[in-house]
Amino acid sequence: MSAEKSVKTVTCTAPVNIAVIKYWGKRDEELILPINSSLSVTLHQDQLKTTTTAAISRNFKEDRIWLNGVEDNINHSRLQSCLREVRRLARKRRGGEEDETTPWSMSQKVHIASVNNFPTAAGLASSAAGYACLVYTLSKLFGVESELSAIARQGSGSACRSMYGGFVQWVMGQRADGKDSLAKQVEDEMHWPDLRILILVVSAERKHIGSTAGMQTSVETSPLLKYRAESVVPARMEEMTEAIRQRDFERFAQLTMKDSNQFHATCLDTFPPIFYLNDISKRIINLVHRYNDYYGQTKVAYTFDAGPNAVIFTLEPVMNEFVEVVKGCFPPESNGGPFLKGLPVSPTDLSDELRSAVETEPTPRGLQYIIVTKPGPGPQLSEDSSIHLLGPDGEPKSSA
Amino acid sequence: MSAEKSVKTVTCTAPVNIAVIKYWGKRDEELILPINSSLSVTLHQDQLKTTTTAAISRNFKEDRIWLNGVEDNINHSRLQSCLREVRRLARKRRGGEEDETTPWSMSQKVHIASVNNFPTAAGLASSAAGYACLVYTLSKLFGVESELSAIARQGSGSACRSMYGGFVQWVMGQRADGKDSLAKQVEDEMHWPDLRILILVVSAERKHIGSTAGMQTSVETSPLLKYRAESVVPARMEEMTEAIRQRDFERFAQLTMKDSNQFHATCLDTFPPIFYLNDISKRIINLVHRYNDYYGQTKVAYTFDAGPNAVIFTLEPVMNEFVEVVKGCFPPESNGGPFLKGLPVSPTDLSDELRSAVETEPTPRGLQYIIVTKPGPGPQLSEDSSIHLLGPDGEPKSSA
Repeated sequence: MSAEKSVKTVTCTAPVNIAVIKYWGKRDEELILPINSSLSVTLHQDQLKTTTTAAISRNFKEDRIWLNGVEDNINHSRLQSCLREVRRLARKRRGGEEDETTPWSMSQKVHIASVNNFPTAAGLASSAAGYACLVYTLSKLFGVESELSAIARQGSGSACRSMYGGFVQWVMGQRADGKDSLAKQVEDEMHWPDLRILILVVSAERKHIGSTAGMQTSVETSPLLKYRAESVVPARMEEMTEAIRQRDFERFAQLTMKDSNQFHATCLDTFPPIFYLNDISKRIINLVHRYNDYYGQTKVAYTFDAGPNAVIFTLEPVMNEFVEVVKGCFPPESNGGPFLKGLPVSPTDLSDELRSAVETEPTPRGLQYIIVTKPGPGPQLSEDSSIHLLGPDGEPKSSA
Repeated sequence: MSAEKSVKTVTCTAPVNIAVIKYWGKRDEELILPINSSLSVTLHQDQLKTTTTAAISRNFKEDRIWLNGVEDNINHSRLQSCLREVRRLARKRRGGEEDETTPWSMSQKVHIASVNNFPTAAGLASSAAGYACLVYTLSKLFGVESELSAIARQGSGSACRSMYGGFVQWVMGQRADGKDSLAKQVEDEMHWPDLRILILVVSAERKHIGSTAGMQTSVETSPLLKYRAESVVPARMEEMTEAIRQRDFERFAQLTMKDSNQFHATCLDTFPPIFYLNDISKRIINLVHRYNDYYGQTKVAYTFDAGPNAVIFTLEPVMNEFVEVVKGCFPPESNGGPFLKGLPVSPTDLSDELRSAVETEPTPRGLQYIIVTKPGPGPQLSEDSSIHLLGPDGEPKSSA
């Protein structure tokens, strides 16, 4: 019993974010400093989240980590960066002295367990939610209150944006030590209540070229990426921030699509070229443009990260109809039940006119499923100890 | 009989060309002046050519044109530009006076018939060969000897490059009247005897977005295209010219691939985005990179125009093996006979090591066929009157 009591356990959750001004390319590989600023929307944790439990105890012999139930290598350098930086902040907070009288000393070892409720590496930026959750959870465990996005950034660049809810800028900064390369909230998750986000899961296959290797090759070989980072993105950051502040969907949507396309253009300008969009992705892009053309108005936008899955932005009144349009193009395999996950969608009838305007050869099995969500808050401390992933002994709970 | 004798008939052929530094975007739509210089290889007419017959007679009531056996609209503005400009040169040559005593007066009407021996609009730049052939044939009919590429350019931009054999630059020029926007031969068709060109015909479907509309949208919407034209292409033109002069295949091949990729990147940066590459095109790209990686040397290059078909450059000693590799990836439907057209290819055995290095899931029916060719000469006057497409009366011969 005394062994169990000497374990302190904290569980937190953190969100996925989707960039609308894309991050692609580092100026410093070690500190993870980007070549341009970026801007993202934080997705709601009711649909997509990482849950992390961290525990500390005198009884632990070494730092250990379990990802989705399987022990992983704690010596991964980015993981080590995050652990080291949170411990450093914790020591600083205590005046730089090791306090041997507290049971939760900085020198004690941690056990970490983390799970995602969505497929890892399916282009859904699982590393962003993962590192945001790790850093947030460790900070709660060690009682650290400081700015944490610069630490999360050292785990995975885009993780810094998952440290806030709503609409978030990652300001690239200028300093060589990266201290000014931080995430900042533009508006919180309540700012744009009728914004809806659909994730069209084209393929849950692991992507061929990971984003770390991909962006490194792009920085080395693409003349267009350099130009984009230096000369295109700065104005787009301002325009996007303004569009979000004013809830100007048309402007937000157009810029989101243009920036996604430009990011994928720089991948194609990379040598050898990198392709993340496949023929299904292109069909989705064409479908969105036909839908908007039909209304003579930009009612729906797409964006694609380093994978073929589409993330769709639209407004609540448009959502039901657009989902129906997508189902027409990509008829679900089964009765449609598990095809839609997340927020409720009401079936709706499409006019013949709309149907024929967007009509295309249907592609059955083109999509696996759709996740329906909206902007959500940043990382959360869980008060419910029943969701701890580590037992009272600090070992992973059996998944049974 | 007298009516027949009063018909003067000329037949010429002209080649297709494939750009290795791409042309995309006009600064003047009317005169067809490009936003950057470009460079191409002229393909041999033994495999791909346009044949055009033009006739002139007092008996003709109006200018008429037949394309692939079907009468077309002679009033097409680009066709009219070419007719007008050749007639103007002819008049100028005769001292600006209309000479009513010659039977082949400039004011007499022309009949034109033109056929391609390859699928129209399959991304094989049929308009380039077509307009080059038209202008060359009219010049022979009217006895004009001047520089003709500026006239062909007004039919279709890339047609100016089909006015020469071998390796050809289209120098963009600076003048507003376009008089300095001309094609110039870099090296003739004998310069690089072992260079081979394979056309991998992915799909003979008509492309969705024609290049005229596509490039106009790109100029209006793509920030990357503007940068490419102004800041990337000039140095590439010099490097490509140098690589060709030195027959430096490695340099030629790498730059060819990079420039193709960058062109398609600017199409993707266009809004709405334009996609010419499909999943089969990407498989070809990946196959080429895997093949080159296997040898640690750039032995093969790809380039793609405004369509999914690949054009492959390689050297004669490599060709047989690479064709075998392509056949492994895209198994021909039939016995392989009609799958290969053009220059002979010898079947060859692939080592198991190579096979497994480039191995991929085979895609039957991914390719329709392969045309094997090499660099060839510019337009040719045919001395053989039996190939005239117009009969002695100046009407199209029956195709029977």
